[in-house]
Amino acid sequence: MSGPFAETLLQLAGRIRAREVTSTAVTEACLDRIARGNARVNAFITVSAEQALAMAHDADREIALGRYRGPLHGVPVSFKDLVDVAGMPTTAASRLLAGRVAPSDAPVAARLRAAGAVFLGKTNLHEFAFGTTSEDSAYGPVRNPVDPSRSAGGSSGGAAAALVEGMGYAAIGTDTGGSIRIPAAACGCVGLKPTFGEIACDGVIPLSWSLDHVGPLAGSVGGARATYEAALGLPPSQAAPPPLASLRIGVLRGYFTELLDEDVRTAFEAVLRRLEAAGAALVERAVPHASDVASIYLHVQLPEASAYHAEAIEQHPDAYTKPVRLRLEMGRFVLAEDYVRAQRGALLLRQEVSAALDGCDALALPTLPIPAPPLGVDAVMIGHGSQPVRALMLRLTQLFDITRHPAISLPCGRTPLGLPVGLQLAGRLDRTRELLDVAEAIEALIGTP
Amino acid sequence: MSGPFAETLLQLAGRIRAREVTSTAVTEACLDRIARGNARVNAFITVSAEQALAMAHDADREIALGRYRGPLHGVPVSFKDLVDVAGMPTTAASRLLAGRVAPSDAPVAARLRAAGAVFLGKTNLHEFAFGTTSEDSAYGPVRNPVDPSRSAGGSSGGAAAALVEGMGYAAIGTDTGGSIRIPAAACGCVGLKPTFGEIACDGVIPLSWSLDHVGPLAGSVGGARATYEAALGLPPSQAAPPPLASLRIGVLRGYFTELLDEDVRTAFEAVLRRLEAAGAALVERAVPHASDVASIYLHVQLPEASAYHAEAIEQHPDAYTKPVRLRLEMGRFVLAEDYVRAQRGALLLRQEVSAALDGCDALALPTLPIPAPPLGVDAVMIGHGSQPVRALMLRLTQLFDITRHPAISLPCGRTPLGLPVGLQLAGRLDRTRELLDVAEAIEALIGTP
Repeated sequence: MSGPFAETLLQLAGRIRAREVTSTAVTEACLDRIARGNARVNAFITVSAEQALAMAHDADREIALGRYRGPLHGVPVSFKDLVDVAGMPTTAASRLLAGRVAPSDAPVAARLRAAGAVFLGKTNLHEFAFGTTSEDSAYGPVRNPVDPSRSAGGSSGGAAAALVEGMGYAAIGTDTGGSIRIPAAACGCVGLKPTFGEIACDGVIPLSWSLDHVGPLAGSVGGARATYEAALGLPPSQAAPPPLASLRIGVLRGYFTELLDEDVRTAFEAVLRRLEAAGAALVERAVPHASDVASIYLHVQLPEASAYHAEAIEQHPDAYTKPVRLRLEMGRFVLAEDYVRAQRGALLLRQEVSAALDGCDALALPTLPIPAPPLGVDAVMIGHGSQPVRALMLRLTQLFDITRHPAISLPCGRTPLGLPVGLQLAGRLDRTRELLDVAEAIEALIGTP
Repeated sequence: MSGPFAETLLQLAGRIRAREVTSTAVTEACLDRIARGNARVNAFITVSAEQALAMAHDADREIALGRYRGPLHGVPVSFKDLVDVAGMPTTAASRLLAGRVAPSDAPVAARLRAAGAVFLGKTNLHEFAFGTTSEDSAYGPVRNPVDPSRSAGGSSGGAAAALVEGMGYAAIGTDTGGSIRIPAAACGCVGLKPTFGEIACDGVIPLSWSLDHVGPLAGSVGGARATYEAALGLPPSQAAPPPLASLRIGVLRGYFTELLDEDVRTAFEAVLRRLEAAGAALVERAVPHASDVASIYLHVQLPEASAYHAEAIEQHPDAYTKPVRLRLEMGRFVLAEDYVRAQRGALLLRQEVSAALDGCDALALPTLPIPAPPLGVDAVMIGHGSQPVRALMLRLTQLFDITRHPAISLPCGRTPLGLPVGLQLAGRLDRTRELLDVAEAIEALIGTP
């Protein structure tokens, strides 16, 4: 096996269906990689080895009986540890929830269970998903598989790190400001945030009700598609990647490229040149109020998080990690007038992104302006100055949580240090499958990592 | 002509279509009633007599040419004075907007214009729609046509008073906490709040973005239906009132009937008995968290209004009437955490009302717990104590603004003093026409006033 994704989820699914490999063998291999590698990356909080083997065994038996359920059947997957899976703890990476066991599956887990997926366990995250680096966790920081001194991104850091380490073929994460796409870009896998509301957030501990999205991470766009469709209970669709020469891609510059690490810029521009060489039309697109997105995001996200946590933060302040608690306490002072104003701003941004998509198949921009930052660092040098890590991590992703458009991150090369760079594509509201088509066409051009 | 609605909008429309009467003659009669009666009730802020006669003349000419547009063609209507009508002032009954002339039609006005309606002018309201009695207005209080010492209800008080005085056959109002249904009940006409979002609020000065509804008032359910359909650009539907014996009506008690003026209770119970006698099935229905509605409403409505008015209230505080200014200033202190919590509560109430509607054709409750209160009075005696007028006026209507279900008020008798009592019916989300069908069946039983 060369590279983390030598075999994609769909290739594996094909072999399982053809009974060239058993789910049991694949699951054993994943559990073995977890047993050997988890100490290094700290991707899993809970490993449900026995249950996984039982599920794999059942999956194999069913297939032997000719009852094949689809591409997730027998495929080992993991869940970010704020998604309820019946009988497993849901910790949200917080001491606050220690000992809590989920009584039933979140709908997304129930759907994947019905699709025949094998549940490996629950992945580590930034506490309560309230952070972008996955380092504030009661279970210790997630480490980037490429360089364990660096962040895996967040908040679904464990999900991405697990995938890149071969600890499963798909992972369910959540994305409120970029929490699926950020770790996908930081670790070098694919992360999909569907249109807002598509995959139900029931049974998932909320961070921010009007921004939370549930979505898949996988090694390839096809794997993300198969997991997305299974999570919706849809039959698998035929991938229909359009010819590159037919694509019209809106390139976001201005706010989106004015603050970029030079290695990220190089990788991003290289992808654009390859797209152009392959015949895709590139057009410049703008989102006039993009530079207001951080302020709009903050005034929506903080008070929604605080409303959810208000009682616990009063009664058990010490149960939280300090940075998360600090942000939750900040949120309690936001005025409703400013929240309402921010929600009006969100509506404006939604119109602007939809207008930018007009006549384009997708918008293209980097996922992260920087490669995965070192752990324990609050600010990094970029351009002529230092910038806070948190703001940088959210800078290019939070827009599409605010506007509700589907967005995907796929690997698009590496920095000279070998750190992954992510290409982000955003598509039309309620047209997640069309976005996946475009992403698949581009992935075919630039390759899986 | 006996009673205010001796001829309904649909009857008039039939005579206009048959050329038994001209729009010009009808419009002249309305303008004459305005000229003679407006000083008494103060229903209109702007009367566009010349324009109305020109529109009526055009309508007649078109009909003479055989181009009949539908039931609004040639029918005189009015607009609450926060709806933009091209070339007319939009004052919102506030000194703040004195001199402002609308550059173009709000979509609802454009649709009625296209339907051939004749625009009589703009009706008086509670300043910026921020009140339930229509007494805080830069243009003086609206007076109840039945008893000018009493409120016409609000905020669309002018719209209802105008109709009852024969100054037009339909009126466009807005409803944020009950502002269409409250004056309809207080004055004795029909007021329809469609499902949230059905009739666009563009071109209408907002009170509260997540609660504002635009809808019609008319003398009968059929008139409200015709105006609603014209406002949506829909072809007129055949009224299909179901047989009363097939109806299953959910009666809301508990919170909804525990605080009722005895004359209102008598009228409401009498309607229920008549429905039962006609074969309708009455079932008791509950909304478990109904008593939280005022607190939820307040924490959503106040800060949304404050966000819209923040700049003006800082720069021109004296342009507002004092009670409205006071409420706007209160809204500035609401915390976002409480607003978010209230929006979560709204979601719960929506689920509860939908559950209460399960298996019912509509929910029935009074529109107002009291008859129209005297002007200038802050509290009235009810039950064993005194209650604030504002809270009483909103008590039974604001729920359906919060939950977004369509709701209608129709006259259901009078108190011994001759004051109108309103019956309120609420229907399923996005099923406004079904609610109109039920209302039409009940109106056929209990009669127009």
